[in-house]
Amino acid sequence: MKKIFLALLTLSSMTASAQFGAPRQNPIVPSVVADVVEDFKPAATNQGGKQYPMVNSQRMVRAQIVAPKASFVGLDIAGKIYEMTKDENGVWTGTSEPQDEGFHYYQLNIDGASVPDPGSKYFYGASRWGSGIDVPAADEEFYTVKNVPQGSINEVYYWSSVSEKMRHGYIYLPNEYYKNPTKKFPVLYLQHGMGENETGWSAQGKTGIIMDNLIAAGKAVPFIIFMDNGLDVPRREAPAPGQGGGRRGGFGGFFNAFQDVLIKDIIPMVEANYRVIADANHRAMAGLSMGGMQTHGITLANPTTFAYVGMFSGGTFNTEELKDAADFKKTNKVLFMSAGGRETRMAEGDNSVGKAAENLKAIGINAHGYVSPGTAHEWQTWRRSLYQFAQLIFK
Amino acid sequence: MKKIFLALLTLSSMTASAQFGAPRQNPIVPSVVADVVEDFKPAATNQGGKQYPMVNSQRMVRAQIVAPKASFVGLDIAGKIYEMTKDENGVWTGTSEPQDEGFHYYQLNIDGASVPDPGSKYFYGASRWGSGIDVPAADEEFYTVKNVPQGSINEVYYWSSVSEKMRHGYIYLPNEYYKNPTKKFPVLYLQHGMGENETGWSAQGKTGIIMDNLIAAGKAVPFIIFMDNGLDVPRREAPAPGQGGGRRGGFGGFFNAFQDVLIKDIIPMVEANYRVIADANHRAMAGLSMGGMQTHGITLANPTTFAYVGMFSGGTFNTEELKDAADFKKTNKVLFMSAGGRETRMAEGDNSVGKAAENLKAIGINAHGYVSPGTAHEWQTWRRSLYQFAQLIFK
Repeated sequence: MKKIFLALLTLSSMTASAQFGAPRQNPIVPSVVADVVEDFKPAATNQGGKQYPMVNSQRMVRAQIVAPKASFVGLDIAGKIYEMTKDENGVWTGTSEPQDEGFHYYQLNIDGASVPDPGSKYFYGASRWGSGIDVPAADEEFYTVKNVPQGSINEVYYWSSVSEKMRHGYIYLPNEYYKNPTKKFPVLYLQHGMGENETGWSAQGKTGIIMDNLIAAGKAVPFIIFMDNGLDVPRREAPAPGQGGGRRGGFGGFFNAFQDVLIKDIIPMVEANYRVIADANHRAMAGLSMGGMQTHGITLANPTTFAYVGMFSGGTFNTEELKDAADFKKTNKVLFMSAGGRETRMAEGDNSVGKAAENLKAIGINAHGYVSPGTAHEWQTWRRSLYQFAQLIFK
Repeated sequence: MKKIFLALLTLSSMTASAQFGAPRQNPIVPSVVADVVEDFKPAATNQGGKQYPMVNSQRMVRAQIVAPKASFVGLDIAGKIYEMTKDENGVWTGTSEPQDEGFHYYQLNIDGASVPDPGSKYFYGASRWGSGIDVPAADEEFYTVKNVPQGSINEVYYWSSVSEKMRHGYIYLPNEYYKNPTKKFPVLYLQHGMGENETGWSAQGKTGIIMDNLIAAGKAVPFIIFMDNGLDVPRREAPAPGQGGGRRGGFGGFFNAFQDVLIKDIIPMVEANYRVIADANHRAMAGLSMGGMQTHGITLANPTTFAYVGMFSGGTFNTEELKDAADFKKTNKVLFMSAGGRETRMAEGDNSVGKAAENLKAIGINAHGYVSPGTAHEWQTWRRSLYQFAQLIFK
């Protein structure tokens, strides 16, 4: 697991460097000026009424800010700082190279200060609330709000005996939860990645929109989703064998402590407060990146608790750890592993999710490998992963 | 109403100037250095793990940011820009004068660019998502999360026939809504102010926390709250008499158009989708500032729709407009008007909420005037107003 973790860190350098507090300066490159198609439109993620940042049909991002006294302003996105230029009114403008489809964290750099762009809405990732931009995607239909029966994402505070404090999560309740007040529903426990928090799946992930659209189209059965914070956990335990970490921090600590919170606090709270079918066949766990690794560890350690398991850009299960795992194999109905097409190590070859699924099928697991075309270790991969996974579970 | 509106603009200069796009530069003043008590603590509104901004026991705010190449960095709060100073590592620090108790919008100024402080969480107000800071208050207990039965704030999308698009609001459902699946509840429609949006009451306003605590203490009956956007409305109508504005904008347009959305879209949607007691005796409307004025106009124009009416820093009803309003008087059970103690015009003297309540009582209205001690046209006034109003209604 450690090796996979290091690979994920490399893939997700922005998240990782912010998480570990390593001051990292992206290289400064010139703003793009040649062969730019001038059909820029305000990004969907902009604050109401704000014109900038914009995106054009080449998926270039253009930022603009008034900073009359600044000597340097840069657009810091996808590992590069594009040097912006100032006009006679003190307005700085700059254009990036084409970006991947989907959502990206970014920021502005003003004279050495990394700050949010006042034009964008703010999202939690890279261990900070800051700017994000959604670059239009050919398949964006599936995460666009439509006039279909609407579920809702609800903010939930609850007492955690493990943390000895009030904790905070979000619950998605499908439209039918309100319409049919006696029906009970399955639950997916869905986790974010390193440097993110419990808001990621509903904001950047567009979970509620994806689910409402899938359910309305008859492609997914209605289920509840609970999204919590997998990092804000007490790290008290001794490390589990082979996981490293433990009381003094390290990554094992996150897995162990979140397992405790999930099993002892969250699941009982959800099952006591909502109309839930409280058995393994109606319980799923999935997560992205670190959340996928937590899913891996927690579902292995609690083999009869979850029938459906999803790891999005979070590595793979292997046949070694599952071939004698009788309880896990008996309980599991779907094991889903995904990666972005540009996460080469997980998308292609012997270590890919596809190869892992093939191997797991050979030992009797209903495994699925999914690769999101043309995306990296970012939210477009995970939106698509949820869209795929949701169609496979509780059926 | 126009006169009241101009008074509100003056009181809320930051919100107003941002709303109307008037570039306004607050005066630059030196950072406070004398008689500063060095007991600063990270603000409750900070991003997780961020040390700055801080607040001390004198309610001074201290900001800090790394900006090695900047020539000017200022802390822009409550109408002044405090000039910060740079140390040998390029770290800028500055301290404000004492602030009022409660929540304030603020930002940093880096070489002429107004940007959010990367240390704070972000809130929507002054027509932008940006930094906010909560200065501890003597009475903060009432809006502090406690281990009591928790309701939830739910995000709701719905089709608006008036706007011809999907709209977006938030609904507070008390804990009992989930616990008692056959019970029906009263509803308060609660509106934000100019330059704010549907997120204000749940984030800055702490609505869910205030209500959970009040209900747990037996001080308020459980009721539902719906919070929508009172500015994102089509302005199609001709102006109502005396309200100005209309098709081409102006303020009347907001009131008329939001009335349409509220009466034709929101109330029917809430009553169709949630377990609601759908009559005037179980329907309330309240709002802050512009939302109070919308409440004023809408409850007068729909006199048999709402039994409970609240205007928080939104002016007053007067005896002239109510003395012959038979339907309104017959329907109304509580008319609540509030102001911050530092909103002098509404807090003291002949135009005060107290005087208005006295006059309205004399013509048979169950009117209440409330003044929040030591606060201005800001959220501490409105948190306290909700706390008071919620104890008076549906009883």
